[in-house]
Amino acid sequence: MTNFNKAIVLVSGGLDSTTTLALAKDLGFDCYALSFNYGQRHISELNAAKIVADSFNVKEHKTINIDMGQIGGSALTDSNIDIPEVYEEGIPVTYVPARNTIFLSYALAWAEVIDANDIFIGVNAVDYSGYPDCRPEYIKAYEQLATLATKAGVEGASFKIHTPLIELTKADIIKKGTSLNVDYALTVSCYQANEEGKACGVCDSCRFRKEGFEVANLTDPTRYK
Amino acid sequence: MTNFNKAIVLVSGGLDSTTTLALAKDLGFDCYALSFNYGQRHISELNAAKIVADSFNVKEHKTINIDMGQIGGSALTDSNIDIPEVYEEGIPVTYVPARNTIFLSYALAWAEVIDANDIFIGVNAVDYSGYPDCRPEYIKAYEQLATLATKAGVEGASFKIHTPLIELTKADIIKKGTSLNVDYALTVSCYQANEEGKACGVCDSCRFRKEGFEVANLTDPTRYK
Repeated sequence: MTNFNKAIVLVSGGLDSTTTLALAKDLGFDCYALSFNYGQRHISELNAAKIVADSFNVKEHKTINIDMGQIGGSALTDSNIDIPEVYEEGIPVTYVPARNTIFLSYALAWAEVIDANDIFIGVNAVDYSGYPDCRPEYIKAYEQLATLATKAGVEGASFKIHTPLIELTKADIIKKGTSLNVDYALTVSCYQANEEGKACGVCDSCRFRKEGFEVANLTDPTRYK
Repeated sequence: MTNFNKAIVLVSGGLDSTTTLALAKDLGFDCYALSFNYGQRHISELNAAKIVADSFNVKEHKTINIDMGQIGGSALTDSNIDIPEVYEEGIPVTYVPARNTIFLSYALAWAEVIDANDIFIGVNAVDYSGYPDCRPEYIKAYEQLATLATKAGVEGASFKIHTPLIELTKADIIKKGTSLNVDYALTVSCYQANEEGKACGVCDSCRFRKEGFEVANLTDPTRYK
């Protein structure tokens, strides 16, 4: 299918965003991949993003440096906060303040420049229900904002933020991606992967991913340390 | 007046944001000043932001580096687009795609970390009616988003984005600031100020500012080239 429309796709190099990119491609969008270097503890995620974007033949791939370390407040960007190995109730310490809001803002800026009205983000409200900026009502508010924020919006266009994974379980995401030939061995989800992208197997993110492959009854190709 | 609340104040070093900081201080907020290095053509604006923030004894002043140059699409961040010397109808080329959306996102992130629910931004819908992200309906949409986006919002707080200048003319802004002893000689508004912060006197931004002092019947302390 080809629809000749351009879409910005947020690509972190993880399992969810890679599946999202596969879905956007499958819908026929010309994909512009956007990644962020926001002081993640390991760079392997960004290497994975590049490999994933290349493997999908995106039109362009940008990696934006953002100063989240200066803002702090999360285990993912502040080395003084430990990554937990056990599941926490409520909003986890791996929540990065306003992260998706910042990411979507850059996506919107690039969308304006290339004249795209579609943005894809692999948020998921099932596994990450503790993250406020992964909820459907948040995404809906962002669409309204995007339309008001932009030249295109003023001229009558409206923005669509596609969240094809939002209601899916990890197992369903993996099944969908597998049906689109996603090679999950390329992706890195672990909060503390090493330089080669090998996963710890114990953090929240690793646990969700591992269970996803089990429930989907598919072989887990993740490279563990 | 003291209300013991913290507020993030966006401070560019220009006339509007400096007046906004004066107003936030006057309302008794503990002010946290936030500036952005977004590939403006001249650094004098950021020097002015630092001087202004210091002069108001803010609790903290952060300058965040953001990669707007990579996104492009504006005369302010793309050296291939000329700054116009005559007023244009519609949305001007100095509009930076999604700029306020990006700025507010960082403000929101910092607000979450320091536990503030108030953000001040010196947008103005009168002189800059061509900028979509300076309109009251945009700001209202951002407040809704901010409340949905954050831990604080989930826990019942709501965010207020204060835009004390939004309906004021440039002359009214200058009168208000003058009544609060703002030293406008410290501020830089010009799109093409030189390294010492001296203004060109002819760009849109200079013209609005100059006319503002004339209409307010106050001496213009701006340092021109």
